[in-house]
Amino acid sequence: MILDKIRQENDIKKLKPEELPVLAEEIRSFLIEKISRTGGHLASNLGVVELTMALHLELNLPTDKLIWDVGHQSYTHKLLTGRKDGFDDLRKYGGMSGFPKRKESKCDAFDTGHSSTSISAGLGYVEAREILGQHHTVVSVIGDGSLTGGMAYEALNNASRLKSNFIVVLNDNNMSISKNVGGMSNYLNGLRTAEAYTGLKKGVEDSLLKVPGAGERILGQMKRAKSGLKQLIVPGMFFEDMGITYLGPVDGHDIRKLRRVIREAKRIQHGVLIHVLTKKGKGYQPAEINPSKYHGTGPFVVDTGEQTGKTTRDTYTDIFSKVLCDEAKRKEHLVAITAAMADGTGLARFSRQFPKRFFDVGIAEEHGMTFAAGLAAGGLKPVIALYSSFLQRAFDQMIHDVCLQNLPVFIGVDRAGLVGSDGETHQGLFDIAFLSMIPNLTILSPKNRWEMADMVRFCVDYDGPVALRYPRGEAYEGLKEFRREICYGKSEWIYEEEEIAILFVGHMAELAEKVREGLKEIGYPVSLINARFIKPLDEEMIEKAAKDHRLLVTIEEGVLSGGYGEAVLRYTEKKGLTMKVLNVGLPDEYIEHGNVEVLRKEVGMDPDTIVKQIVTEYICML
Amino acid sequence: MILDKIRQENDIKKLKPEELPVLAEEIRSFLIEKISRTGGHLASNLGVVELTMALHLELNLPTDKLIWDVGHQSYTHKLLTGRKDGFDDLRKYGGMSGFPKRKESKCDAFDTGHSSTSISAGLGYVEAREILGQHHTVVSVIGDGSLTGGMAYEALNNASRLKSNFIVVLNDNNMSISKNVGGMSNYLNGLRTAEAYTGLKKGVEDSLLKVPGAGERILGQMKRAKSGLKQLIVPGMFFEDMGITYLGPVDGHDIRKLRRVIREAKRIQHGVLIHVLTKKGKGYQPAEINPSKYHGTGPFVVDTGEQTGKTTRDTYTDIFSKVLCDEAKRKEHLVAITAAMADGTGLARFSRQFPKRFFDVGIAEEHGMTFAAGLAAGGLKPVIALYSSFLQRAFDQMIHDVCLQNLPVFIGVDRAGLVGSDGETHQGLFDIAFLSMIPNLTILSPKNRWEMADMVRFCVDYDGPVALRYPRGEAYEGLKEFRREICYGKSEWIYEEEEIAILFVGHMAELAEKVREGLKEIGYPVSLINARFIKPLDEEMIEKAAKDHRLLVTIEEGVLSGGYGEAVLRYTEKKGLTMKVLNVGLPDEYIEHGNVEVLRKEVGMDPDTIVKQIVTEYICML
Repeated sequence: MILDKIRQENDIKKLKPEELPVLAEEIRSFLIEKISRTGGHLASNLGVVELTMALHLELNLPTDKLIWDVGHQSYTHKLLTGRKDGFDDLRKYGGMSGFPKRKESKCDAFDTGHSSTSISAGLGYVEAREILGQHHTVVSVIGDGSLTGGMAYEALNNASRLKSNFIVVLNDNNMSISKNVGGMSNYLNGLRTAEAYTGLKKGVEDSLLKVPGAGERILGQMKRAKSGLKQLIVPGMFFEDMGITYLGPVDGHDIRKLRRVIREAKRIQHGVLIHVLTKKGKGYQPAEINPSKYHGTGPFVVDTGEQTGKTTRDTYTDIFSKVLCDEAKRKEHLVAITAAMADGTGLARFSRQFPKRFFDVGIAEEHGMTFAAGLAAGGLKPVIALYSSFLQRAFDQMIHDVCLQNLPVFIGVDRAGLVGSDGETHQGLFDIAFLSMIPNLTILSPKNRWEMADMVRFCVDYDGPVALRYPRGEAYEGLKEFRREICYGKSEWIYEEEEIAILFVGHMAELAEKVREGLKEIGYPVSLINARFIKPLDEEMIEKAAKDHRLLVTIEEGVLSGGYGEAVLRYTEKKGLTMKVLNVGLPDEYIEHGNVEVLRKEVGMDPDTIVKQIVTEYICML
Repeated sequence: MILDKIRQENDIKKLKPEELPVLAEEIRSFLIEKISRTGGHLASNLGVVELTMALHLELNLPTDKLIWDVGHQSYTHKLLTGRKDGFDDLRKYGGMSGFPKRKESKCDAFDTGHSSTSISAGLGYVEAREILGQHHTVVSVIGDGSLTGGMAYEALNNASRLKSNFIVVLNDNNMSISKNVGGMSNYLNGLRTAEAYTGLKKGVEDSLLKVPGAGERILGQMKRAKSGLKQLIVPGMFFEDMGITYLGPVDGHDIRKLRRVIREAKRIQHGVLIHVLTKKGKGYQPAEINPSKYHGTGPFVVDTGEQTGKTTRDTYTDIFSKVLCDEAKRKEHLVAITAAMADGTGLARFSRQFPKRFFDVGIAEEHGMTFAAGLAAGGLKPVIALYSSFLQRAFDQMIHDVCLQNLPVFIGVDRAGLVGSDGETHQGLFDIAFLSMIPNLTILSPKNRWEMADMVRFCVDYDGPVALRYPRGEAYEGLKEFRREICYGKSEWIYEEEEIAILFVGHMAELAEKVREGLKEIGYPVSLINARFIKPLDEEMIEKAAKDHRLLVTIEEGVLSGGYGEAVLRYTEKKGLTMKVLNVGLPDEYIEHGNVEVLRKEVGMDPDTIVKQIVTEYICML
């Protein structure tokens, strides 16, 4: 295997030219085989095999800086920098991350995970290089989907002023995670068809030069097809308008052409954009046909593409999706928004059933949230579903546009809490805290699948800003017998005993039950309370719980600073209530990738650890 | 006075054409006279007098929706919607806001304050109109500065898909608050000079049509001056690329032309952008010459333009600015970033002294923060100074780009706490809470001017992500005799007594001293502790304070949820410490405009209220 010769960065440069296409094939086979076992990001990685190889051939890592936007397409980069063995434990706890990590390799210049950061980071590297009098090359690789994020535009706007080299590689597969949207996407489509491999531009110029009186015809054409013509004249004019030289488009699977354009780009003394056309899923037919399905995939059977290990039980996202569609049938004012995550958030179903009431805004959480505020101000009931860690992007817009005006926007906070194998950049650690501080916002979280359905309906009907927080994965089917009506601001007493009361948030129900069982086994009576509402606090419940118990244990899957537990504690202190409070939650640190149950154990959020903590620290007073 | 005839919206339509220019002059005189007394936003409002009049003449308010980006340019709109009397109490507590407010008038379609939200909100109104089968017009007015914000681009990208009318008015004064930056700004400059009032385009077309063989010459020109030519052919092609019809540029002080172009725009069945050229400060010479100075101004003398009521005492911002420049002389790795606020953040001084190490990224907090992370990864020490309420925009970037990689970025959090007359959208209520939850971040706040200087130096030298929080306005000059070295994570004991300990954050020093005096007057011994570090908590100090006192009072100017007080309380509870804790901070609500001292009294953060609360609620146990 040629791949075995690659033990570290720059080893690829020792290969003979004829070995390169073979290596590309080996890499594809390797990735398909490994990801079919571990799961991971497949389609995007298959698309950039040759591009990554060309970059590694023309760059000198780690001196040169290579930044991968989003970063889930960095597998070939990992292979070419000596991390082949890491793929056996890809995305497992203690194993290799699915994203670039500075702590994993000196060839990973910048940690990524969220979209549209790479141009900003690359520009920082470039300006640092200039100030420090260094001479390396800086390259940011960004997908066409990530270009719909405003940060990328802000960064391009700044890159226009550069007087030194900075290479942005636009990896254009005409497809972000879902189908791409918006003006920029249309524009790139224009570039693709106008120029691509046809040499059309040259042909038009030649014929114009040959024919006398062509001027009139040019102007005629201009008037008939402004937009077509300008692209014939100056492809990439959008970028040239921004003060950035445009090179391309170039076939992203032709290593020779890619190397040539990268060498050309390195000579330009300002910002330069290389427009590379790639095919997502390239070389694996099931992924070529359905790249969305193989974007982030679990294990699958290589021969058939069949994805294994999928369960038939509904996820919280499924329930969100189904109930929302049910409600939308009767409620014509209900509209839905996603930020390029129609599949992930379950809103794809809504988009099929109610296409006119569905909006995919692209990777643009900031705009999406204020757009929702505008829809609400205009008389509709918008639902915007975002992953918890991406909702961080819309923090100001929730404060400033939705909640200040008290507008009835329903924010679906998906992937709240630990998400597992995507790791640090994707864990939903902060939402309870950053939502709780926003005035006028109501926040709920369901204990199981039935309560999830009830809460979706509640939020649809609620006339004010409201956030519903729910985790990744299968909805809990325990506590089925407890299904009481959702009353605004009211918690639910599940078991009412004495001594210890456990107040849990949402999907911590299962853990809370186990902690209760553990304590009962050793003889302690324990009440179980489902918070239901993270905000407003159910003060009546807290006072009753405080009166009847000597210890309140709060359990939430989120950071403690600003969390539900702190709010409970502050209320008890304010009221002079004298029981003790134990806040259980996530520690003040980033949490890496791995199986969620393993991660919970690592951070001490497993039944045994919590029971032991209660017994050793609070036993004296019970 | 013609202005007196305007008692409510649409009254302007009753005027004779010849009265309109007179009204414009009267409005200018009125605004200059009123703002010279109350202070407020002057230059931007003088720039849009005719534009606002033209919009009011062509729209039917409140049925039509008019959204002002940022909103500080809405004074003429307020005048034309019956709020003339409000100008006597402009920006005063209980008086009229300096920004659009839905609760103030049904003609204010959307509350604004932060930049670049208006196109998103307008698009929401448009989609709501279509779904509800309504027929009104929606107009968003956005400045060229606000177009540097990524949200505006995200929204334009989405507006490209519209199949119904939506009007975006680009109010182009070639100047956001500071001088405008970036590729978009260059592009707009191109439009201005290429087209403006010259009719150049028409001329070029004519001559091309007349001369035989013009084709070759066209191509020659194309090659020599791509960018110039395309603008001659299709001005606004950037916007047309986005799928948005471009109209303009049009003289923003010519009411007749403005009305005509607005009427034309209303007929287009998709997104349309009207490029309006205005002059900031128009009609008041001092503001025309120096629009930055009269952007947001205090009271001034109309005849001379002299700004009165300015103090000679240094603000916290002044000290930040001066110390940073001192440090930068010796530390060549120190670089500074502003988001279009060089004057407001005091970084203008840095930009003059170290122009090559200074970056104004435009109104682009998201990019600015990740750019800072890139600079730090590249080996520099970046300082990014943002107002607290604008820092909300960079929340995800702090979590995901700066602190996850533990990069040494120094975040200057200016305007932290109450800011006064700008009101709800500008108060710095949340930063303690949203910063405290971020792992790896160190947070400080100074008690007075000398500590501010020491802390700036500390943050410059600190090798990790660090935020320094300081308020608007003059630096406190009390407690001068207490100037001890800043030690990482350590608080400062100012007075050490017993019974009650007050732990204050930063500029709450003065209030804390007064509370202490009040309590001492009635016989209670009180310790005074300056937190210095909001994060990490000084646990040793808390244990000592808890041991030696029966009540800990925390005082911070920020929301309680997730604040310093909650962190102290959670620590004491965790350690089983038995004293009581009283958390003093801002309530869970938006706080309107007004004098800061008045606002503090309103929310119960004045010495009398706090002393009374301590005496009545905690007296029993002392």
